[in-house]
Amino acid sequence: MKLGRLNHVGVATPDIEAAIAFWRDTMGATAISDPFDMPTQGVRVCFVDTPNANGLWGTQIELIAPLDESSPLTGFLERNPLGGQHHVAFEVPSIETARTDFEAAGKRILGPTRIGAHGTPVFFVHPKDMNGMLTEIMETPSHG
Amino acid sequence: MKLGRLNHVGVATPDIEAAIAFWRDTMGATAISDPFDMPTQGVRVCFVDTPNANGLWGTQIELIAPLDESSPLTGFLERNPLGGQHHVAFEVPSIETARTDFEAAGKRILGPTRIGAHGTPVFFVHPKDMNGMLTEIMETPSHG
Repeated sequence: MKLGRLNHVGVATPDIEAAIAFWRDTMGATAISDPFDMPTQGVRVCFVDTPNANGLWGTQIELIAPLDESSPLTGFLERNPLGGQHHVAFEVPSIETARTDFEAAGKRILGPTRIGAHGTPVFFVHPKDMNGMLTEIMETPSHG
Repeated sequence: MKLGRLNHVGVATPDIEAAIAFWRDTMGATAISDPFDMPTQGVRVCFVDTPNANGLWGTQIELIAPLDESSPLTGFLERNPLGGQHHVAFEVPSIETARTDFEAAGKRILGPTRIGAHGTPVFFVHPKDMNGMLTEIMETPSHG
């Protein structure tokens, strides 16, 4: 594959409202989405926009908090009670092509391709096959 | 402060040559700098460019490997032998103003302001005061 845009850095937090206050008050973020639930992933999600060099479409911070104890984030937050950097997400033009490429490279893909928080298909690749980084591959969303 | 551009995600690795091969061959990066030593920080550094929506000045991946056992990365790599996400770095127009803001907010700054890998002044803020994220604040480098 060809490396695409770094769409977001996923940041886990035990308390999404406290995390929103941190990004607003300490980091000075001015564009923060309303949080919303993604029951299929077991997380509550909120996007913090960062500017790029032209002030538009910088890499987002994706705040994610567990919806309940069965959330895939529960283990991460047990190891990191304050939260922290959880995954990186890169855009690709075709999710099917990317999946075929990662499978051909022998990378372990975590579950089926599904619809991600930006409304486009995504899959996750196992951190042990990705130099320790949980990596999301996502089809490029509309920036309009 | 006002949130600036996400300049880079710092990714620790035990083997910078292997990490470069991973970003080139698995992730499809086409713009990768030559690695260089930063003895003052105890690390060897290499930048992987990612495209932004316009193909320019996307957030970089900053690969960092320990120069020796006294490197500040040694502990991280003991906990994460494969490497992984280590820090996030945001740009600010004035490092002095940002430092004053973080100090006023009661955030623990790790050591003095120093010259970072991009040649501009930087400081790091303690992850325990930053929702678990080791955070680098850097004066905006020239993108020319």
